[in-house]
Amino acid sequence: MKVKIVLKVLGIVLFWEAVLMLPSLLISVIDNSYEIKAFVITIAATAVTGFVLSRFKSNSSEMRKREAYASVAISWLIMSLFGALPFYLSGAIPSYVDALFETVSGFTTTGSSIIRDVEIIPRGLLFWRSFTHWIGGMGVLVFTMAFIPSIGGRPVFLMRAESPGPSPGKLVPKIGESSKILYIIYTAMTLVLILLLILAGMPVFNSFIYAFGTAGTGGFSMDALSVGAYNNPYIEWIITIGMFLFGVNFTLYYLLMRKEFKHIFKNEEFRLYCFYTVLGIGLVVINVMPKFNNFSDALRHSAFTVSTLVTTTGYATTDFNLWPMFSKSLLLTLMFFGASAGSTAGGVKSIRILVLFKSLYYEIKHTIHPKSVQTIKIDGKSLDDDTLKSIMIFFFVYVAVIILSVIIVSIDDFDFMTSFSAVIATVSNIGPGFNIVGPMGSFADFSVLSKITFIADMILGRLEILPVIVLFSPVIWKKN
Amino acid sequence: MKVKIVLKVLGIVLFWEAVLMLPSLLISVIDNSYEIKAFVITIAATAVTGFVLSRFKSNSSEMRKREAYASVAISWLIMSLFGALPFYLSGAIPSYVDALFETVSGFTTTGSSIIRDVEIIPRGLLFWRSFTHWIGGMGVLVFTMAFIPSIGGRPVFLMRAESPGPSPGKLVPKIGESSKILYIIYTAMTLVLILLLILAGMPVFNSFIYAFGTAGTGGFSMDALSVGAYNNPYIEWIITIGMFLFGVNFTLYYLLMRKEFKHIFKNEEFRLYCFYTVLGIGLVVINVMPKFNNFSDALRHSAFTVSTLVTTTGYATTDFNLWPMFSKSLLLTLMFFGASAGSTAGGVKSIRILVLFKSLYYEIKHTIHPKSVQTIKIDGKSLDDDTLKSIMIFFFVYVAVIILSVIIVSIDDFDFMTSFSAVIATVSNIGPGFNIVGPMGSFADFSVLSKITFIADMILGRLEILPVIVLFSPVIWKKN
Repeated sequence: MKVKIVLKVLGIVLFWEAVLMLPSLLISVIDNSYEIKAFVITIAATAVTGFVLSRFKSNSSEMRKREAYASVAISWLIMSLFGALPFYLSGAIPSYVDALFETVSGFTTTGSSIIRDVEIIPRGLLFWRSFTHWIGGMGVLVFTMAFIPSIGGRPVFLMRAESPGPSPGKLVPKIGESSKILYIIYTAMTLVLILLLILAGMPVFNSFIYAFGTAGTGGFSMDALSVGAYNNPYIEWIITIGMFLFGVNFTLYYLLMRKEFKHIFKNEEFRLYCFYTVLGIGLVVINVMPKFNNFSDALRHSAFTVSTLVTTTGYATTDFNLWPMFSKSLLLTLMFFGASAGSTAGGVKSIRILVLFKSLYYEIKHTIHPKSVQTIKIDGKSLDDDTLKSIMIFFFVYVAVIILSVIIVSIDDFDFMTSFSAVIATVSNIGPGFNIVGPMGSFADFSVLSKITFIADMILGRLEILPVIVLFSPVIWKKN
Repeated sequence: MKVKIVLKVLGIVLFWEAVLMLPSLLISVIDNSYEIKAFVITIAATAVTGFVLSRFKSNSSEMRKREAYASVAISWLIMSLFGALPFYLSGAIPSYVDALFETVSGFTTTGSSIIRDVEIIPRGLLFWRSFTHWIGGMGVLVFTMAFIPSIGGRPVFLMRAESPGPSPGKLVPKIGESSKILYIIYTAMTLVLILLLILAGMPVFNSFIYAFGTAGTGGFSMDALSVGAYNNPYIEWIITIGMFLFGVNFTLYYLLMRKEFKHIFKNEEFRLYCFYTVLGIGLVVINVMPKFNNFSDALRHSAFTVSTLVTTTGYATTDFNLWPMFSKSLLLTLMFFGASAGSTAGGVKSIRILVLFKSLYYEIKHTIHPKSVQTIKIDGKSLDDDTLKSIMIFFFVYVAVIILSVIIVSIDDFDFMTSFSAVIATVSNIGPGFNIVGPMGSFADFSVLSKITFIADMILGRLEILPVIVLFSPVIWKKN
């Protein structure tokens, strides 16, 4: 592997991370709060490291698939290590592993937290914590590609490695242009969301926090009761619909801009995503109806909860941990499925679920008519065998990661639902699970080993496993 | 689909089922117990139905893949419906769904039970219940093929549909001969086991019961405390090793007979199966050590429990439900893996786990060296793409069945570990799970809906899903 190009990319990422910390520093300065010094030190250290690394000279043709995968995996690790410093240096989170957990949870848009009382955290740190959701949602490298034209070589691999889903579409032939379009849509939608939240009566600062969490499908909040703290149906419905929309493949918004409505409604992934979201809401509302006074409350809480878990956001309006087991199992399943590829959401992604069910259907047909030749089609286009194989292998390794993590986490001897849902919640980048890690709980009580497992799971889930495994496989470090 | 050939096969199966009930009737007559009448009626009804159906005339060339799959799925359903009659008609199990559950649990070598007090069940019924394990273990259709030369057409498909694993080997060119060899090995090993159990001090009748459960990797016992009731280390070690050996691919015993030792030790599936069994025992023994007085007790119970769950048998020497969560998670994983293809065990099977891990390894290599061509090799032989795809689809649909079943079973609102482990225990044909369905518990408290789900899961697991889905897919019923 060509190490220089990887270090150069890392340098650019770190430099931009330092820049992106400035708004948080500004808020700390305005509040004249104790974490100013921590921000200043972190920003200086990150910027200097980034600047030095970005000076590496390297030939642009050196960015091959393996360098792209390694760049993405290393960048995510290192930027989390630096991003954790403000929490740690300020003393707001006294343990560095905890601070790292919180930062990884931010960048990966997970939203799991080890903070027991979020309401005592100063606003500068809260802003940085939620801003990592927004940055991580669309991707850090996608961001750098949008604004620095020449990392060099084949940046499409960088985008592929960082974007969720089996085959992220280039919207336009130039990859830099695609990134820019994505970020413009993303920013515009976030601004609209902030505005709507303010109009619904949420304070301005809070609107930013919740909009970042919604847009990145992250789920960090600033209230112990999460969205439930506002007790405001307007806010709840705005966020419900917001989360759903940020779980849609962003390519569809580009098609919307180009007024290609037919393609949107015919999009099979979108239809499946709508189908299981609506079905989930329907079944949950029937199941939890006895817990509420009227249908509109039951519907609002059900819609919010299904939307927040299927999009892997992880906000809460009510303690769904107290719901019946049927709803919990259903919610666990939706957490595992996740929303669309090419969105900010986690999970297996509906396009993969679609492909897997289609391949099962063709397998049955093939059994009955062995001589017929079958190719899986998505939106009318044939799926090549390599992509199909990748999707199937992804599904297997995703389940394998879940199983292995549950075994490790079980050493802490919590009940099975806690361990199992905590793993699903981290690897699918959701946030809360059930029981101890329920929406009103936290991850604070786990051992260091379990926390490191969760950190690994969050990064594995966000980068969809392969780039991380590639980085740690010995083959890649051989000279060639 | 050609229905006549399917009905003919069904007739032959039912006729043999009636014959195989005779030893149980004999025991009832010896004991002069209340279930004699139930056996006589059932045997008569089964034999007559079988005889009538077997009279169907059909061209032997009509047995294609779809007819074979349908024959197997229908045979397993119908023979369970008839096999349940002695329990129901005698009144020993008052509910027919419960009787069906028990019978399906028997034939599929699951060993889950709805009987709260097994010690009041008469010996004739106990014998029939355990004998279904032995019949179902190696396969009913494989049995009929061994003794009736011409069901006609392509009986290899029948064997494929019924035998566990992705590609059951024909040992010799003639399929009837292969079946015969398999049954001879199976019978010989069972007889040796019975003898050893008697020598270790177990009563003769009990030795038959436990040998059937061990050979079929089923797990029905005749004591509330299962194997633990005998408090005899010799018996426990004999059954531990017995279960392990019946979880080995029977092809290896054929190789052993032919003295091809090299092939046995080089067999990759066998090595993986040994590897995770030994690893499992090692980890569990460390974890449960504090619960026992000495190392030899800890080792004996750990080895027994790992062996019984990895081979999907389901006996118990101790209430492993009380073990720490780490051991439980590990055991759940081994339950999911299962033992070898071509054995009497359930689960995903180690050959599939092997192929899946190998395909992950090749996917990583392919990412790093995109131009290299990769073929997965097992025991030095290349795996064709169709088999690889089938294995991956199997893994997906196996997980999908588990997820769907957990959701349905959750309606009963038991804790998550109970619902989850009950589903794994039935779909992997193990028997007991954890909590309410632990080794000292039973499935009696579930609703009828859940019991029907478990019945479906047991059959889906035993026939490895596809034949059952094929039977219920509308395409197969179209005229052609």
